[in-house]
This record gives sequence, C-alpha cells and structure tokens, in this order.
Amino acid sequence: MSMRGVLRIGEVRIRVMDMAAAREHYGARMGLHEVMEDDKGLVYYKPWDDHEHHSFILREADAPGVDYVAFRVYDDATLSQLAPRIEAFGLPVTHIEAGVYPRSGRRIQFVAPSGHVMQLYAEKELTGNTLGYRNPGAIPYEGVVRGYRVNRLDHVLLGGPNIDECARLFCEVFDFDLSEKIVEAESEMSLGVFLTCSTKPHDIAFQLQAEPNRFHHVSFLLESVGDLYKAADLIGKYRIPVEVPPNRHGVTRGATIYFFDPSGNRNEVFAEGYVHYPDTPTLIWDTNDLGHLGFTHDNHMRQSFFDVLT
Amino acid sequence: MSMRGVLRIGEVRIRVMDMAAAREHYGARMGLHEVMEDDKGLVYYKPWDDHEHHSFILREADAPGVDYVAFRVYDDATLSQLAPRIEAFGLPVTHIEAGVYPRSGRRIQFVAPSGHVMQLYAEKELTGNTLGYRNPGAIPYEGVVRGYRVNRLDHVLLGGPNIDECARLFCEVFDFDLSEKIVEAESEMSLGVFLTCSTKPHDIAFQLQAEPNRFHHVSFLLESVGDLYKAADLIGKYRIPVEVPPNRHGVTRGATIYFFDPSGNRNEVFAEGYVHYPDTPTLIWDTNDLGHLGFTHDNHMRQSFFDVLT
Amino acid sequence: MSMRGVLRIGEVRIRVMDMAAAREHYGARMGLHEVMEDDKGLVYYKPWDDHEHHSFILREADAPGVDYVAFRVYDDATLSQLAPRIEAFGLPVTHIEAGVYPRSGRRIQFVAPSGHVMQLYAEKELTGNTLGYRNPGAIPYEGVVRGYRVNRLDHVLLGGPNIDECARLFCEVFDFDLSEKIVEAESEMSLGVFLTCSTKPHDIAFQLQAEPNRFHHVSFLLESVGDLYKAADLIGKYRIPVEVPPNRHGVTRGATIYFFDPSGNRNEVFAEGYVHYPDTPTLIWDTNDLGHLGFTHDNHMRQSFFDVLT
Amino acid sequence: MSMRGVLRIGEVRIRVMDMAAAREHYGARMGLHEVMEDDKGLVYYKPWDDHEHHSFILREADAPGVDYVAFRVYDDATLSQLAPRIEAFGLPVTHIEAGVYPRSGRRIQFVAPSGHVMQLYAEKELTGNTLGYRNPGAIPYEGVVRGYRVNRLDHVLLGGPNIDECARLFCEVFDFDLSEKIVEAESEMSLGVFLTCSTKPHDIAFQLQAEPNRFHHVSFLLESVGDLYKAADLIGKYRIPVEVPPNRHGVTRGATIYFFDPSGNRNEVFAEGYVHYPDTPTLIWDTNDLGHLGFTHDNHMRQSFFDVLT
Repeated sequence: MSMRGVLRIGEVRIRVMDMAAAREHYGARMGLHEVMEDDKGLVYYKPWDDHEHHSFILREADAPGVDYVAFRVYDDATLSQLAPRIEAFGLPVTHIEAGVYPRSGRRIQFVAPSGHVMQLYAEKELTGNTLGYRNPGAIPYEGVVRGYRVNRLDHVLLGGPNIDECARLFCEVFDFDLSEKIVEAESEMSLGVFLTCSTKPHDIAFQLQAEPNRFHHVSFLLESVGDLYKAADLIGKYRIPVEVPPNRHGVTRGATIYFFDPSGNRNEVFAEGYVHYPDTPTLIWDTNDLGHLGFTHDNHMRQSFFDVLT
Repeated sequence: MSMRGVLRIGEVRIRVMDMAAAREHYGARMGLHEVMEDDKGLVYYKPWDDHEHHSFILREADAPGVDYVAFRVYDDATLSQLAPRIEAFGLPVTHIEAGVYPRSGRRIQFVAPSGHVMQLYAEKELTGNTLGYRNPGAIPYEGVVRGYRVNRLDHVLLGGPNIDECARLFCEVFDFDLSEKIVEAESEMSLGVFLTCSTKPHDIAFQLQAEPNRFHHVSFLLESVGDLYKAADLIGKYRIPVEVPPNRHGVTRGATIYFFDPSGNRNEVFAEGYVHYPDTPTLIWDTNDLGHLGFTHDNHMRQSFFDVLT
Repeated sequence: MSMRGVLRIGEVRIRVMDMAAAREHYGARMGLHEVMEDDKGLVYYKPWDDHEHHSFILREADAPGVDYVAFRVYDDATLSQLAPRIEAFGLPVTHIEAGVYPRSGRRIQFVAPSGHVMQLYAEKELTGNTLGYRNPGAIPYEGVVRGYRVNRLDHVLLGGPNIDECARLFCEVFDFDLSEKIVEAESEMSLGVFLTCSTKPHDIAFQLQAEPNRFHHVSFLLESVGDLYKAADLIGKYRIPVEVPPNRHGVTRGATIYFFDPSGNRNEVFAEGYVHYPDTPTLIWDTNDLGHLGFTHDNHMRQSFFDVLT
Repeated sequence: MSMRGVLRIGEVRIRVMDMAAAREHYGARMGLHEVMEDDKGLVYYKPWDDHEHHSFILREADAPGVDYVAFRVYDDATLSQLAPRIEAFGLPVTHIEAGVYPRSGRRIQFVAPSGHVMQLYAEKELTGNTLGYRNPGAIPYEGVVRGYRVNRLDHVLLGGPNIDECARLFCEVFDFDLSEKIVEAESEMSLGVFLTCSTKPHDIAFQLQAEPNRFHHVSFLLESVGDLYKAADLIGKYRIPVEVPPNRHGVTRGATIYFFDPSGNRNEVFAEGYVHYPDTPTLIWDTNDLGHLGFTHDNHMRQSFFDVLT
C-alpha cells in the first residue's frame, strides 16, 4: 500500500535521426547527464536527480518517435503479479530476461491499446544523484545542475487510438487514477486522458490520434518557475524551435515550455502543478474551453499541439 | 497498488489557549479558510487547495499541543484491513462511529509508541478547492489564495520516545518508507525519523524526546520560494515570533520558515524539497553534520529546535 | 548632477471608451489604486509604490489613445531652464498655471516631433506609498499590493514619425541617453529608439509610425518574474486579450506580458531588465534579428506589435 | 542633467590576507570574473554585467579592510568641476595621472570625513559584458553567469566618525540624495546614512563607528530572490561563515545575505529593493525599531552588525 505497485516512468527511449545533433540538444544544451553509450550506439542519459543509472535513451533511426516507455515497479513480486493481470485485460505479455536491457533486471513487455510498446521492470542499477546517502547535503556542486536545470524525468504524452481503453488499462490493471480528462463538448468523447500513480498531476497521458504509436512529448521536471524562465532564456538563445514559450496549463496547472529536438520530437520542461490524491474527483475539461485547458496565459490552443507528433 | 492504503495526513487538531488570538494567527494572517465552528467551540480550517471539508482544527484548552493526527486512507476496505494489522503490531484499536467527528465517516484510533493519538478514516465530506471539477481553470479568484499563500496541509513533526518503533509501525503496518534518519554520530541512535507514503520527502516525522506526546510543528505547503519570501515578509511585518527565517533544510531539501502561534505551537511553511520514491535508499544524517542537516544556509542548528515543543 | 533634471514619467493620461469597463480593468483587476475622480469625470490612479498623488489617468472619449505624457523634473528651477532649451530646439512651449492640473504645480507643454503632447512639472502633491516616512517597514499591509501586483508606473512606448528627432530632443535637451536602437538592417533607418534618464533600460521609447501621435503601450513595473507569472495567471483567468504571454525582450532584457484594455489600449507588465549607465554604448539591433530583439523566448516578432496602436 | 555627475561606484579595492583563499572565495565560488593580475600581484575582478574592465580589486596585505572606493563620473569635465567643489568643502584633493591605475584615466582623490580614501575617475577601458553592442541578445552563454550569479557591483557600507559630514559631502558636493537614515531614538543622533546617486536605494552608506576608515561590507547585485536562494544554497554548501542567511532589510527593502570572505571582510548579495527618486522624502528609522530596520523577517538585529568591521 501507499506508494507500491507501479512507481513511475523509469525509462523512455526515443528515436533521433542525427545522434550528434541530439547530443548537442539533450546533453550540451539541456544539461542531461550522458552516462553511457552502448555497443549498438544507443546513448543513455539521466537528469541529475534521478537515482537510477539512466532514465532517458536515444537511438539513431530513420524517423523520430518513441520506441518504448518502461515503468519502474516496486519489486519483483509486483512484476509477477502484474503479468497475469495484463493478460487478463487481454494484452499478450512478453518476458525479457535480465541483462537484455543494460543494468536492468528482467522485464515484461506489452503493447498498449494505443499501439505503444510498454515495459515493466523492478530492478535497475542505482547510481544516485551525486550526493550520496550519508550526510548528503541539499544540493550538488555547481555544474551538476546545468543547462535547463532539469531535476527529473517527469512524464510522457502519447498519441493513438483507444485512449479510453488505455485509461481503463492503467486504472484497472495498474491502479493509476484518472486525474483529468478532455472531452469533446457535445459528444463527451475522450480527446485526452491523464493518469497518475503518484501525487503528481500525471505520470502518463494519452491524446486521441487516428494513427497508433505516436509520440507527443517527453517532459522534464524543473524546480520552479524561476528556473523555467531561465530555461526559456537559454532555449531562445540557442534558437531552438519553440512551440509554446512560458505559459501555464489549465490541465495539471503546470508551468510549461514546449520545444522540439533537432529530429522534431517535442520536449517539455515543467514546474509546479497541483498535488494529486486518489480521492480527488477527475477534472473534466471540454472543448468549449479549449484555449484555457491548454494554455491559460493567453487562452489560445495551438493547432500544432494536435497535428505535430512523431 | 500505486497510491493506495494510507494517502496523507488529512487532519490535525491542536490546542490553543486563546481562540481569538489563534483565529487572528491562522485565519486573518496565515490565510487559512475558516469553514466551521462547531457547538463545542472547535474551529475548523483548510488551506484553499485541500479538497476535503477541513484539514486543521483548533481546540481551546489550558495548554498548547496536539490532540491527534488523522490519516486519510484510500477506502473503507483499507480501514478494515488496517485495524487487525495495527493490533497485530501490538497496539489496541478503538473504533469510532461515523458522525462523531463532523463530516466524517467511521474512524479507527490508536496510540503510537511515541504517545500520540492517531486516527484513520476513509470518508470525509469533499467540498473542493473553489475551482470545481468541470473546466476548473488553473487558479482561483484573487483573495482565495491569501495571507501566506498556503496551498495545503503538508506534514507534522512529533516528539516522543520509541521513535524507531514508530518508524517500524509506519513502515510495516502502513507501508510508509523511511526517507531520512538522523542518528547520533557514535552510537547511531535514532534522533529523528522521516516517513513518507507519497512522493513527498515526508508525511510525518518523529523527533526523539523523553516525554511522550509532544508536538514539534505542523507544516503547510507553499508553491515556491518566491511565495516563501513573501510569507516571510508578512510574518515579519506582523512581528510574529520567528525561530528560523527563510532557510533550507538539509533533511528533505525543503525551503522553510519556522514561527510560533500565540500559544507557542510551532508552525512551518515549506516549499520545494525533492521527489521521493520507495526505491531511493534512506538518507542517513549524523550529528557530525548537525548544522547542515538542519539549516544549510548557515549550517547552524538552533537549540530551541530540540528544546521547545508543546 | 547625479539624478537631476528630468526624473521620470510622472503621469500618463490615456483615453478609454467605457469608463466602467476601464475601471474594472485597471482598478479591480490590475489592482491600481483609484485615488480620485474629478468633476470632469477623469479617474486618477496610482500603483501603490508611486509616491505622488497619482500617476495614471483615464479620460472617457470616443477613441482610445494617449492624451499626454508628463515628466516630473527635479525642481522649479529645472522647469525654468528647460523651457528655453525646448524652444531653442525649435518647439513652441505653452505655459500652464499651477492648479490647472489637479494637485499639480505649473507645467510647461510642447509637442514632440512624433506628434505627442508632452508636459513637464516640478510639483505634485506627495501622498506616499502607505508606509510613511518614519520607521516605514518594508512592505505594506496585505491588500495594498493586489491584482497584478504593480509596483510603479514604468515607461511608455509611443508611435510616430521623426523618431530620430525625438531621440535628439531627449538627448540634447533633456540629457537622456539613447540606450538602445532598432534599425532596418540594410538602410540603418531607425525603427525604434529607447531613451533613459535613469538606471532603467528606458523611460520612454518611440516606434516609427507614419501617423503621428500614436500610442503603443504603457508599462507597469512588477517586482519579479514570479510576480509576472502570477499576473499572467490572473490575466488569463479574466480572459483578457493577450498579445504576448510571459516572454523576455531582447531589447531591455525585461520580462514582459503584453495585453489590451477594453478600449484596445496596449498594456505591459514588466520585470527585471538590466541596469543602465550613461557610459554604456547604445545597443543596436537590426531587423536581421527581429524575432530575438522582440521576444527572445521564441524568437518570434508579432506583426501586431507594429500594426496595432491606438 | 538626468544621470550625470557621479554615476556609480566603479571600483572598490579591498585587502585580503591570503590571495589564494580569496581567489577561491571571489572567483571559483562567488563566480566573479578574474580579468587581470598586475605586476604587484593585485587581482582584478568584475561581475559579468559590469561593462568596465574591472570593478573589484584584491590586494594581499597583513590586515583586511578597504583601500579605497572609486566613483565613476560622467566625463572629464565633471572631474574638473568636482575638484574645486571638494576643496571648497574643505577636503584636500590629490591629482593622480592617467595610467597610475591600470586601464584608467586621471583620477582625483580625497579622504572623506569618515577617514576613507575616495577617488573619482571619468575614463576606464570598456570591455563589455560578453554580449557585444550589436544584436547583443539578452543573456550570455551558460557559464558566464556562474557561482552566486552576481550581476553587478552594487554598493559599499563604510564605518567611521562624522557620518553626518559624509552625508553633507555627498549631498552638497556630489548631488547624492539621503535616501534613508538611522537615528538613535531619543537623541536623533545619526547612526547610519544611506546615499544614492541613482534610482537604487543606496550607492554608498556610512555607519557610525568611533574608529575611522572601517570597512563594513561590499555588496553585489543579484537578479532575483530566486537567485539569492540559490546563492544561499551554495554559500551553505561551501560552509562559508554566514552572518545573516536570506532575509529582508527594512532599510532599502532589499533581500540580503551577509557572509564573510576568508580574511573576515563582510560580503553581501542583494536583490530587489525599491526604486528611489530624489523627490521621495528621506526615510527615517530609529532604534526603537532596530530589529525591523535591519532584518524584517525575524525583527532581530545582529550585534555583530555593529561590532565586526575590517
């Protein structure tokens, strides 16, 4: 009980078309820590305050998009319990041995109703956040927190069909809560579902798209709006393509910037947002208030937010 | 799984010696919302972003201190499961019928090894945060967030003996995690234990004290360090007794201010702090680094922090 | 020497088409303090930290725009010295007796080469900022700083022809410095000139427009980016038309929001920006970098910024 | 007129007892830019956003303290006008040829009534802030703003006798304004005078001390309270002796941290504070409100603030 079962998104692997450009973007500029390049050329990153060995992976490919999202679960027993529950939901499960993914224990894999490959794992090497675990102090030495001052991997938004089925999967099988939902005003058809397994407003979200397995964005957590503004200053200085400069979401209440990596994958940096608990009713937004649910500072939804995915 | 079991501290009741002065302090100045006075003269408050009817209660009495801490659990089935687990741990459980506590369902009550009365409940009237649950928007109208701009009740620190037993109770029975621990450097004796059932650094903490049932402080969550500074400006303007003006904890990494209500109960306002997960090892601090674990900005522990409790 | 001569823009009077709507906008929402309505129906405002009786005035009229901009000078002797200097520059000067403008001493008036009516005055009733001048404390009581938490009237941007002549007027006659200039990249023709008589990046600026006497915006100073974000939250909640949500100017380095009053007059709230001194060379921006000089967070100049004036 | 005459403190030279330790403190940790070491071993620094070649100088010596404070004036004509005014005030003036101080034009020097050596100069090499003067952009590349993120040299507080005479000197000869004054409550004797030649709350201040030529602190400007908190985090991590962690002054309204360099010289980092104009009456504080005028967050004056100078 309490924080058990599925803990968080522990790993996202995306595709980039030019690894050198991607390293410039995610490493030199954003300030993620590159921790490893494996023998297949995959490059492994972590924001400084993620404790596992890595949480974000780049693979060079012909097209951008997401390869898979992997959830860290509490322990191996949780993995064993979840596998049959996923199958009972109707989704085939693949078992992957320990070591196939570097520094990681065994994994189970399935394809969500939205077409996305998802994994669960209970073990990955713990390398810490540079502070250690005895008299750690509050902050790392200067230079560890760098670039856009990202603290942690936060969440992903994925595009695909069957998003109500995705919500049902996460709620019924993984005990997530549906924190927010966007619906078409007249039909009440779901256009977006936001799911949390923590006190964050969301750990994963799905946007309705006709085509399966689409990638909307990966989001990184910053400490404050002050840091978000400093990130915006740097993003602008680097002339990075920006979809939405500093604004605030209605959904999640988070302060946000959206921008694109050199391959066209959307990134977000994110701060604030409310504290969610499972006894809070789902917040429902409808398309009558589309501007405000998206971006409350100018009440203006960007069409690209629905059209541009990788 | 995920966020289930015990969710959070849903209610703290403390004793004040002068209700009018306390109302000035918690209502007019701090900006908590007074939602009810009952027929026994108890006064009920909530920070604006707590969704339940109330979360903080004042009772006029001859001496300050804490009456009880009540935890909100996921559902009634959780209550039924926890009662025998508490008894198996060796603590007698009292059952309290719905309605004895206003707007609340049934409760179970026990006394922690530290001597504090604790309760669990699964139902309390939900009144929301003024935004509603359909197209809520991101922020309330001006004046709803007021005074020190407290968002939520966050945590309590209690003083008493047997704090390792308290930690074992919360970890074994309630599935909390021990996020941090302060130990005497040579003996490794526990001086403070910090326990979380969420991604917060702590939901409850215990400080070693010879005398049972002591109250150290109740803490309220602010949105940012900017808001913390504004709160400090107001606290100073009102000439409220301040133990520690703006600083940062080593433990929890939180930005903090400590001050006292007119009856001598310690309050904290709190912002930032890291994101905790159950797979993060417990952070251990020892008394060789007492200044830094307490207050990293000047590395100076205040003796009153150990001596002044109510 | 030091801060002498022209001190600041002490007063801006603009036209609104619906006084009730304007009061809602500037008073109830923005939080300016209404200090007086005169017998002609003019409504007088001040941000809380302006010390003079008023600094911003609304006049109901058939069309929006600016009536005049009035500069506070150091003393009456300064007024006497400046009148012949203005005339020597080639601009006729009108003398206005004390009391014609309420709470104000005598004024001198001229029309700038851009077509704008400008005044100078040395005396206006000083009413202070609520803190007093003996043991004032640092901040006023809660509620004095309200709405978008505007501290002071900051600057205006005016549109018209002959902006190099305006720059020459302010530099030669009033000892302002040309802090920044925007030029057409090939012709080096001036498109914008930014002039300061203080350590602020600008006190007044002119944008090249074919038509004289155009009003671009009046800007109000906030204390921090944190306050700017809170202002953006409120502006968005009120569904006020926003031209540019939180961003940062290249020119002036200021954090900014642009929005419109109900009559279509543009407002800005503004924070940060560099500290200017007269020995800093003029910063020159050209149209090759139009996006960045305007809005560095997304490097995107808004066309309305040149087309929409009142 | 406007910003003319004396512009600012352009240079402060202090004594340190261990240059290596001082370099660690001011360079590696605080993040000032070391721009030169001269052939006598003096080390020259500047915060990134000061445009002149240097603004802060260290000299190794047997005892800490201040060597001199040098003011930048508008132009050479100003220098020529000020020399006789200083002499008319009764202070002998020494003329120093161009080149005696590196990168600097001629200087005039005098000793203030408080016993401090002061200089005026009109020319020093301008090296800029890394951004250039054509299409400069808003912020420098990452790493230029570093350490405690100091933007500029801001002001000094000096200790000595005859502080009313110092105030008269600066007001009558240099056209500064007396922005604030601290007086003994019964006698109205001046204990502190705060003087400004800009819109800052003070450019220089004097604290009454029996012994002449004492150094209280040099202060550096930060951009925001958010940056001040980050500076406090680093200062605490480095275990630098801190006199006052983050707080807010009553006098000047500035957010502040006081700490000491390895030789015992006091430093301040500073943010916010009000905008001063010459027509604002002098703020008077008396010793009845000593805690609040010093540090409003806890209303507690530190005795060391009067006793510890170098």
